[in-house]
Formats: sequence, structure tokens, C-alpha cells
Amino acid sequence: MQISSTANPRVKAAIRLRDRGGRDDQRRIIIDGVREISRALDGGVQIVELYYFPELCRDESHQQILQSAAANGVQQIEVTPQIMEKLSFGNRVEGLVAVAEKPERTLLDLPIGDDALVAVVEGVEKPGNLGAILRTADAAGVSALIVADGGTDLYNPNAIRASLGSIFTVPVCSVASQAAINWLAQHQFRTFAARVDAKIDYSAADFRGRAAIVLGSESHGLTELWRTAGITAIRLPMHGRVDSLNLSATAAVLFYEALRQRGGC
Amino acid sequence: MQISSTANPRVKAAIRLRDRGGRDDQRRIIIDGVREISRALDGGVQIVELYYFPELCRDESHQQILQSAAANGVQQIEVTPQIMEKLSFGNRVEGLVAVAEKPERTLLDLPIGDDALVAVVEGVEKPGNLGAILRTADAAGVSALIVADGGTDLYNPNAIRASLGSIFTVPVCSVASQAAINWLAQHQFRTFAARVDAKIDYSAADFRGRAAIVLGSESHGLTELWRTAGITAIRLPMHGRVDSLNLSATAAVLFYEALRQRGGC
Repeated sequence: MQISSTANPRVKAAIRLRDRGGRDDQRRIIIDGVREISRALDGGVQIVELYYFPELCRDESHQQILQSAAANGVQQIEVTPQIMEKLSFGNRVEGLVAVAEKPERTLLDLPIGDDALVAVVEGVEKPGNLGAILRTADAAGVSALIVADGGTDLYNPNAIRASLGSIFTVPVCSVASQAAINWLAQHQFRTFAARVDAKIDYSAADFRGRAAIVLGSESHGLTELWRTAGITAIRLPMHGRVDSLNLSATAAVLFYEALRQRGGC
Repeated sequence: MQISSTANPRVKAAIRLRDRGGRDDQRRIIIDGVREISRALDGGVQIVELYYFPELCRDESHQQILQSAAANGVQQIEVTPQIMEKLSFGNRVEGLVAVAEKPERTLLDLPIGDDALVAVVEGVEKPGNLGAILRTADAAGVSALIVADGGTDLYNPNAIRASLGSIFTVPVCSVASQAAINWLAQHQFRTFAARVDAKIDYSAADFRGRAAIVLGSESHGLTELWRTAGITAIRLPMHGRVDSLNLSATAAVLFYEALRQRGGC
């Protein structure tokens, strides 16, 4: 199938997926980039349309995606460079853009094994931070990530991009904070909440076994909901003049300390 | 002194400091934000002009800066909101913008004590990453940061902002990579270079004593110059699908592991 007009209704619907309103209405998401689409396929995301501009799809990685999509009955739509540019994120035009069903995961889909390490981010504001945290979670072997009281849409194109597509392979779900707290307690996770006013250094925490690491928003940190029995507040020591790190830097330090204690490095 | 025209030559010169060319020509920098200007004062940066819009300067933190500047003979220039907006970074208008002499530090200014921990970043591309790394370096008690073969200007307004002003309090200097390598060897730093192809996990490195942590650029990592006798390549283990972390996340993990080994957390 070929489309050459940006006024085509399918193209217009796909472009609307760049905005949260469009994603919420259609219950679909838009994915650009070869790496990100590959990871979505790996993660079992259901792709429904694949837009491509042939001249930019000659190398092996593009061809593999087109073949895999064809084998799965995904509709392939050849478009002009003008349409591709409108579909693509920022100034990144890689010749392939996918439209997929929005993955719907719940807490029931998350792993709860004896050594599950779950990360929770409450009220994260910047999609780029969410994506960077997912990238680090993937690298550090974090089992799942819960977006609690999400300030940002999990499938914002910026989050997808900053995650390098690991948003599709690390189990993630979006829930209310209280639901996350209940779930962690129910499954007896040892839960550590990062707070600048905590008394215990993170390195004194025992992250082995079934454990959870909870991070708050960039501007406001964690809400008071997380000050409850069974949740230990931890902090990163601050030896200079600043009183906090970037959210994604804090996540990296905590995830890798957990990995180190678990013998993963 | 009051200025109400954006065509005023001093104002025009100050606005030019937002660009690298202007900073290089005038050997001055521009600093906005109360916190950043405070840290510049703390760090002994020589401020030469302070632009202010009185209505936004009524709280104590602004008044302290104005008083401290007055005590040091800094020229204070009252401007209109229109001028303040042109001087300020992005959409951030805090009512105070400083022009300062560009700090000129060399390797001779850096600490070389028995427990000095020096960070080196080679060819960093994004000012925001440089700033975030400085913020983390400050927090983790890193003694100094060397920008080697700088792809970005140390005093880019984005770097200043992302550092929260710690760019003025952590000793920093900008040199060629070979000069940094020679200096580290001369002072017998145990030097660890982060590389994705390294064989040794970072947690097996001994960061105690006089040590250096070297990081490469976002796109290309470290140059071959750093593959030399006496420099140990280390890596962060990658347990998922992505093959690297964000540069600033890598820095955070390494700096905090060094701090942990040194008993700082």
C-alpha cells in the first residue's frame, strides 16, 4: 500500500499519536527508530501498521524489521519523505515508523520471584528521565518498573526514545501510588524509598532478595504516602554543596548498588 | 546605573555571552539564577556586572547577592523586564544575571593530595551532560574535574545550569587529552577508564587513594589515547538489552562506588 498525501486519514491518525490525547483516544502508540521497533517486536508489542520510506530502508536492520512485520501480517505502508518527516520524532528520520496497540500491563504481569528487584518512580515529570531510568533499569537487571501516579505518559515518544526501546522489554505498568504500596506489602518486598531527609545511607541497605527501590519526582520527591510501616527511607550522601542528584543519576547509583550486592558485578 | 534600551552596547555585549563566540572574544561568561550566582561568589569567580530587575529581587536570597556584590565593588545595573528577558537563559527569568571574568584554571590548580579523586571527561558533546556530571561530582566528593578535548564549552549556559552552579565550586579545567594523561601519570594517579569493551567490572577496581575516573563522549566513548600503560579499562556490567548507560548515569555509578570504597557512604 502507498500513501502520498499527508491529508490521508490513516496518516493523520498516526500523526495524532505523537500527542497524549491521540494515544489515549486511539489506545495506540507510535514508535520510531529501528532499534526501538526491534525491541517492541522482541517485547511482544502488537504492531498494527509500519510506515516506511524505501530509500532509507536498504540496510539489513531495516529489512529484518520489514520481513518480521510481513511474517506477522502487519500492514506495510510506503510513504513519501514528507509524510515520514511528519511521522518522525524531532529531526530523527530513520525511514521506519510503527503504530502499535498500547501495551496494557497491570501489577499482575510483574515478576514476584524470590529475587525480584522492582523499581518504582512516583510522579516523574520528564519523559526523558523516565526513559533514562528504564535504560538503566534494563542494564542493571531490574526485574520491573512501576510508574506510580504518573506525571508523564509512559509511552511519550521522548520516553520511548530515551529508553532506547527498553520500555518494551522491561516489564512496566502504571498504577496509583497506594496500589503500588499495597502490592509491595502484599508480596513482602523489602522496600527502600529514596529521600533527601533519610537517616540511612543507601549503601547500608540490604538490597538482596525480593526488594524494591522507590524514587520520587524531580521537583517534589516522594509523597507522604511512602512514609509508612515497612518502608525504609534511604539517602545518597551529599559531600558538596548541591543537596540532590538528578533523578536518573540517583536511580543509576541505587540500581547498580543493588546489582553489586546481588553479585551481578 | 539604569539601562532601558536593548540597543545599549553593554547590554548587547552581555547578550553575546550566551554564545561561545562572544565568550571567547570577551573572555567573560554570563551566569543566571540566584543559586548559580551565589555559588560563583562562593567559588571566588570575579563578577564584573550584575544586571537586576528590582521587582523580582525582593526576597532575601536576591538581596544577599546584591549586598555581597555591592561590598565587592561590582557594578549593579538596573534594567527593564525586556532586557532581563533577553539576558536570561531560556524561559527562566529570576531577576538577576551576572557577567563574570571567565575562570582560567590549569592543571596546576588541581588538588593532588594522597586521597585526591579526579574525574576526566573527554570530548563530552552535550553541555547538559557536563553540568549533570559536575553536579554528581560535587555530591560524591570528587576533588576536581578535567574536561579533556572539550567538545563543549565548559561555561555554556546549559552546563552552568545543569551543574546547579557547582561548576564554580568544584575545581575544573579544560586541557588536551594527552596533557591530562601526562599529568595523571606524573602524579601517579591510579587511573580507570570506562569502556564498553573492558574486561574488568568497575566494582573490582580499587578507587581508594589517589585515583582518577575517565569517561568518554556520548557517541564515541574514549579515544585510543587512553589505551596506554598504567590505565585500567573498566566497565559497567550490562544485564539487559542495551549496551551502555547515559554518560551521566555512568558517571554517577562510578563516582558513588569510589565514595563507597573510600568510606564516604
